[in-house]
Amino acid sequence: MEKILTIGIAGGSGSGKTTLTSQIAAQFAQSVTIIKHDDYYKPHDDMTYEERCRLNYDHPNAFDTERMIEDLKKLKRGEPVECPVYDYTVHNRSRDTVTVYPGRVIIVEGILIFENKQLCDLMDMRIFVDTDADIRIIRRIRRDVTERARSLDSVISQYLNTVKPMHEQFVEPSKKNANIIVPEGGYNQVAMEMIRSHIDSYLRSN
Amino acid sequence: MEKILTIGIAGGSGSGKTTLTSQIAAQFAQSVTIIKHDDYYKPHDDMTYEERCRLNYDHPNAFDTERMIEDLKKLKRGEPVECPVYDYTVHNRSRDTVTVYPGRVIIVEGILIFENKQLCDLMDMRIFVDTDADIRIIRRIRRDVTERARSLDSVISQYLNTVKPMHEQFVEPSKKNANIIVPEGGYNQVAMEMIRSHIDSYLRSN
Repeated sequence: MEKILTIGIAGGSGSGKTTLTSQIAAQFAQSVTIIKHDDYYKPHDDMTYEERCRLNYDHPNAFDTERMIEDLKKLKRGEPVECPVYDYTVHNRSRDTVTVYPGRVIIVEGILIFENKQLCDLMDMRIFVDTDADIRIIRRIRRDVTERARSLDSVISQYLNTVKPMHEQFVEPSKKNANIIVPEGGYNQVAMEMIRSHIDSYLRSN
Repeated sequence: MEKILTIGIAGGSGSGKTTLTSQIAAQFAQSVTIIKHDDYYKPHDDMTYEERCRLNYDHPNAFDTERMIEDLKKLKRGEPVECPVYDYTVHNRSRDTVTVYPGRVIIVEGILIFENKQLCDLMDMRIFVDTDADIRIIRRIRRDVTERARSLDSVISQYLNTVKPMHEQFVEPSKKNANIIVPEGGYNQVAMEMIRSHIDSYLRSN
């Protein structure tokens, strides 16, 4: 069996980690499988929509990390998994799943993936995308207000109520578990080129 | 002419940058040229030994960075240079020079090399080795007290008087100019392997 390289890409909201992940995926399309922590938000069928809206989605407990760990273990063994699908329109896990097949490179992406030791231990390389808080909130405002038509007030209040405190409590300390810190994520072409070389060399020699 | 890759390796005193540099050099011995900012301490023939001892060697002005920039430019053009040699026993530049020939990979090493924009602009990749201050002072104490037989008091007082304040004023802010941040430097094998892949890929394709 061919060896699989597992790369974790973490970083705060708006840090540029999704851009980095997308660029890697674009370069190694045939070989890359991505699993996102966000797809593993816990289901809350027992709650009303209003109750689910009030949950803190930036806390580690919001995620079904155990299931993600089990899925990642299977993928690393070369087995396909049924990934959960999260439905943001109702803030709940959907009934659907998506069959995900393991590539030679598995990217695990999420804000809080370095917060869990078991999950960390499954990664061969942990990349933390580090971007200043002011730049991150600017990107978040642009994305949510401009692209997702949310009100500026709601974006700012969510940021101050949960995103920022959870970042400081869980995301920032989890940077300690990174092997490499990439300022500005996918916007950092020198780092991107280095990661590309590494994956390329791995695929050639394993 | 073959293209030359210029890598800057910066980071605080005791961060592990020299270990990282040595590991890279060991892996690519035939291709690597190292120039160290420390070799470019300014000469002070006009001062007494006692006066030179009192200078702040952790401030950017302690270095003849202009000469280093000129030398690096020459090396990047494929020309050999006469590097200055610093004599620590007298705290002054020696009369000797060392002829340095450009390899395919030039490593520029120093605590403050990312503090100077002109110098930064000459580097293709800037790696900052980031290590907690407590670990750095422990390494410094071990090195200076155990290996260099200095007194614990003198090591701590130098640290508090110049190393720490200069680190906070100049070294830490210069991290902003890094493309990649490596926690723990040469002790970080995952990062080391990534840098190795990148250099290897560069040497093959250029």
